[in-house]
Amino acid sequence: MAVNLYIPPESEIHAVPGIEIGIAEAGIRKADRKDLTVFQLAPGTLVAGVFTQNRFRAAPVQVCESHLMAEPEIRALVVNTGNANAGTGDSGLQASQDTCKALASLLGLNSQQILPFSTGVILEPLPVDRLIAALPQAIASSKADNWFEAAHAIMTTDTLPKIVSRRMELGGKTVTITGISKGAGMIRPNMATMLGYLGTDAGIGPALLKDMTRAIANRSFNRITVDGDTSTNDSFIIMATGQSGLNIDSSKDPHFAALFDALADAAAELARKIVRDAEGATKFMTIQVEQAKDTDEALKVAYAVAQSPLVKTAFYASDPNLGRILAAIGYAGIADLEVSSVNLWLGDVLVASNGQRHPQYQEEDGQRVMKEAEITVRIALGRGDVAETVYTCDFSHEYVSINADYRS
Amino acid sequence: MAVNLYIPPESEIHAVPGIEIGIAEAGIRKADRKDLTVFQLAPGTLVAGVFTQNRFRAAPVQVCESHLMAEPEIRALVVNTGNANAGTGDSGLQASQDTCKALASLLGLNSQQILPFSTGVILEPLPVDRLIAALPQAIASSKADNWFEAAHAIMTTDTLPKIVSRRMELGGKTVTITGISKGAGMIRPNMATMLGYLGTDAGIGPALLKDMTRAIANRSFNRITVDGDTSTNDSFIIMATGQSGLNIDSSKDPHFAALFDALADAAAELARKIVRDAEGATKFMTIQVEQAKDTDEALKVAYAVAQSPLVKTAFYASDPNLGRILAAIGYAGIADLEVSSVNLWLGDVLVASNGQRHPQYQEEDGQRVMKEAEITVRIALGRGDVAETVYTCDFSHEYVSINADYRS
Repeated sequence: MAVNLYIPPESEIHAVPGIEIGIAEAGIRKADRKDLTVFQLAPGTLVAGVFTQNRFRAAPVQVCESHLMAEPEIRALVVNTGNANAGTGDSGLQASQDTCKALASLLGLNSQQILPFSTGVILEPLPVDRLIAALPQAIASSKADNWFEAAHAIMTTDTLPKIVSRRMELGGKTVTITGISKGAGMIRPNMATMLGYLGTDAGIGPALLKDMTRAIANRSFNRITVDGDTSTNDSFIIMATGQSGLNIDSSKDPHFAALFDALADAAAELARKIVRDAEGATKFMTIQVEQAKDTDEALKVAYAVAQSPLVKTAFYASDPNLGRILAAIGYAGIADLEVSSVNLWLGDVLVASNGQRHPQYQEEDGQRVMKEAEITVRIALGRGDVAETVYTCDFSHEYVSINADYRS
Repeated sequence: MAVNLYIPPESEIHAVPGIEIGIAEAGIRKADRKDLTVFQLAPGTLVAGVFTQNRFRAAPVQVCESHLMAEPEIRALVVNTGNANAGTGDSGLQASQDTCKALASLLGLNSQQILPFSTGVILEPLPVDRLIAALPQAIASSKADNWFEAAHAIMTTDTLPKIVSRRMELGGKTVTITGISKGAGMIRPNMATMLGYLGTDAGIGPALLKDMTRAIANRSFNRITVDGDTSTNDSFIIMATGQSGLNIDSSKDPHFAALFDALADAAAELARKIVRDAEGATKFMTIQVEQAKDTDEALKVAYAVAQSPLVKTAFYASDPNLGRILAAIGYAGIADLEVSSVNLWLGDVLVASNGQRHPQYQEEDGQRVMKEAEITVRIALGRGDVAETVYTCDFSHEYVSINADYRS
């Protein structure tokens, strides 16, 4: 029961010149399930990625980082669902490397030109033989307009595919941006989300692409939380094929800002789609913190509110139990917070002013906002001029059911 | 459905010479509910307290701190449930002060000799007139053996009363320790729990009592979490009447250690009772972290595991989905954690060694431990020799129901 998650019709999904995608059923965890995706990238494509900061980084994350360091020209990505290949030690690393080797040999590449990704259950060995056996099937099905199928094939507990696609004129060229993401639980990305892939046929210089990828992650996947759990496998990748003819090498390029914003908007939309389809979500909540001294304290307050089980269950119940929001602001970790400077809005309703219940606040007004499926909580700290926004969802019976039953 | 919460029979609950307790129905939030408790303390009693670090400290917490600072001889405590008097600004402060004034005038004290406490809904005005009107009824019912009734009267979403009582011989004197606590949700105390009161007839010097209270909170109420939410009203109080004849003024006293341990054990038991009766709890979990470099990192790991909704729902389902524990260790915030040094036990079962699934680990063994109602998770970090223990519970459908319905 995702919250207002827009799925574009296939006619609105544009292939990205230079990227082809193939899909197969490898039977990683369940039979008759598309669970293997292979992206093939045309020569000259540049790729950058950001990865989880969890210390238990999955084997494929470690392999991705080393290949991105060693090889300027990444030519393929391989993604399996059903198994995270995390907490699997040396044999897990070997499984990821063997996957790359097998795909490289099928495609006539060297194995460092491959980036591997896995998502699913942690601490169980990856059935790498089944994965490798299905690679030819994935390659055989490869085509440019498989983005929608790929959005399905990378799903785990997601109920709906997450895909964005847009086309724009820039510098006299037609530039395409299409991306997919997955993730519904274990979501508090720290540098990236579970899995996000953004392709464009703009050309972007390697150093700039790296900086842009990090900056875009910080505006999108690093601003969402479902349950506060940072996954072992978070990965966000931008692929820039250059086939549109537009090439940007510097942030001083006159078209840089427009391209950056378009990519960042696409990534933010993919990130918000993860929250809309979060496990058990019935409400989509935007937590805006304003008048903070710095980004760090703005995010502390936003995440304290966004992750409080008490706040989230109150939203699930459509109960304007707003004291719970004040309590979360209070324990967010700002040691010198003057609560008498804090104002709190629920939607357009001023709920608390100067750190206490606003004299004109009426419970009915809170109730009216609470009944909406999309709710903005706005918190003004009265300390400075930094603002940050974090997206989250409510906490429902269904979340407990899904996570209690996940492996059974 | 509390988990193995022992309720002693009244015959095991010892009155504390020098402390009398009265109870009344003030109708703070609901009619026909004992919601007002007054402790009266004999002259010469010393009192120390620790309070929430939430920046939205409730009005009574602010008044308690100022009275403890100003007045060496506290002679009464007044506790209401149903309303937290938090987020209520100046009029909330006035309500707390008026409560103290009214009680002081009834008891012939000055109002700074009174400590007020409130627990319940945040951000709503305290119906102070009803509270004050019920004070004479509370005083009239005052007697020494009302601890059990008080344990009931301070309950909010608690399903069972929480009480400990013990008697020991020390320095030729019979010393009594009796205490009560309340709390079931919004529990991650930071310096103290929702409400905890520990009385003893030992005499303890004022500076020592202050130090002991803080140290004991750090061994008890500051080592539990239900949902990671630190309340606005956490308060933990020790009252030492001195009427046993035993007097201790220094930590060098030969009886200090025995008294400290007895008080700390009683406080820890009261704290664990809060977890056993936590909202919706079906399992009581002990998270032991060993081989940490320092207390801070041991607690970071213990709380990351204890507060992960994914870990807690897996325990609710009795599902040994242990990768979720590794993931929580990984995101706990130890930047230089070597995951290859981490070992993880579930009960007596070695689940992960050297950061990966232990070769001999069998799912059946994990399942066997998971079916128990009390489960110990032991994590060895391989970095040092500091150990810390945190207590928590699982995350159930019932937790969501209770917190979605709390105010309705």
